[in-house]
Amino acid sequence: MAPPFNDLKYYTAATPNGLKPAILLEELGLKYETKSIDFRSNEQKEPWFIEINPNGRIPALKDGEMRVFESGAIMLYLTDMYDKGKQFTYELGTEDYYEMMSWLMFQMGGIGPMMGQANHFRAMAPVYSAYGIKRYIDETKRLFSVLEIRLSKADWLAGDKYTIADMANFSWVRGGPMFLDIDMTEYPGVDKWMKRISERPAVDKAKKVGAALSEDQLKEMITGMKAKMDAKKGTAEEEGSSKV
Amino acid sequence: MAPPFNDLKYYTAATPNGLKPAILLEELGLKYETKSIDFRSNEQKEPWFIEINPNGRIPALKDGEMRVFESGAIMLYLTDMYDKGKQFTYELGTEDYYEMMSWLMFQMGGIGPMMGQANHFRAMAPVYSAYGIKRYIDETKRLFSVLEIRLSKADWLAGDKYTIADMANFSWVRGGPMFLDIDMTEYPGVDKWMKRISERPAVDKAKKVGAALSEDQLKEMITGMKAKMDAKKGTAEEEGSSKV
Repeated sequence: MAPPFNDLKYYTAATPNGLKPAILLEELGLKYETKSIDFRSNEQKEPWFIEINPNGRIPALKDGEMRVFESGAIMLYLTDMYDKGKQFTYELGTEDYYEMMSWLMFQMGGIGPMMGQANHFRAMAPVYSAYGIKRYIDETKRLFSVLEIRLSKADWLAGDKYTIADMANFSWVRGGPMFLDIDMTEYPGVDKWMKRISERPAVDKAKKVGAALSEDQLKEMITGMKAKMDAKKGTAEEEGSSKV
Repeated sequence: MAPPFNDLKYYTAATPNGLKPAILLEELGLKYETKSIDFRSNEQKEPWFIEINPNGRIPALKDGEMRVFESGAIMLYLTDMYDKGKQFTYELGTEDYYEMMSWLMFQMGGIGPMMGQANHFRAMAPVYSAYGIKRYIDETKRLFSVLEIRLSKADWLAGDKYTIADMANFSWVRGGPMFLDIDMTEYPGVDKWMKRISERPAVDKAKKVGAALSEDQLKEMITGMKAKMDAKKGTAEEEGSSKV
């Protein structure tokens, strides 16, 4: 028995990493069951979920008895198995395929973790850290300028079509203005690309997969979290920290 | 003209991300030219290099005129093209292949960036941040415990052989005891796996690829950096930070 098993169960929540495979599932028009994971009850750390993703994080996928974890791996699995017409990927072994893979890995190793840290320091950390906020917002801007190198002269990251590399990067980049107040007029190519992807009906559907809040409610929550963090500024000091 | 072009040029430096494809190049016994990138002169930001990797980071690979950037993408390119016997990968489309891909992505999105941040706060940041040090060392330990789930009951991360997923994770994990003083007796499966990989002649050769310092010189340098960071502790405060 080899995959595909045509029995997809998608474990997710409304986060950027959850959005990535959700966009692909919707773009491909696949039939799948959604299992929303409840962070408030720490469901992602329960033994049954650790069997599916030892990292205890969303997203994860099962196809029959088979598991795939990490959003990048899930996207590659889904295109390999269910995108036989190569609508959103390229043929393995072509130059376009490795451009797509390079930009997908750029998202996995750069855009994702660095924007994640920026969001943490900007709105979620238990301490106000001016250093942490600046470090990760600066890095996010640098990474946006890397995307701009490509998107100032091309519509898509890899080759001449919309692929999983675009979906993956988009799912994080869209949070830049909302979460981190990044001025997108500094990245006009990225901004146009972001709007181009936002307008797709599958993207709209994917945003609702596993979502407990509407977009507007989410924005309101983030605004509140940022205001709370701003209020901490300068009121006390991070324990044991030092300026040099 | 489609790849492979049998004309490999590897742009690297002696860092964990540089080590990953270097191990694979050596394990496969491939003929390749090494181009060491000089961080002191910011060579990785020069226009000629940005043409190869827009992210301005090592490693990057050229095969003839074709480029591949990001260590994970390079490893996949090299196995797809030059490991036809599947010595260090699995056949595309098999369950083992996606287990390997999941663990490779776990390294790209978790182990790599989080250990990178831990190293930064522990030894390199311009400010002493107790919060930053604790946050990323705790996360590193959590990620090691995820590896331990698998490696306490199996020799390798994916399936029954040593693959690029092991090489990728190993290249970062080995720095845990050296850089972050992580006690590996808490992760006995990971520790044994690390020693098993360390003993491979190809790994030994790969450590020297692009290296300006010997292992001992590197350890001495890191010890000095950590002592300098420790000396900053409690002497002043991180500007604008607050304790809650």
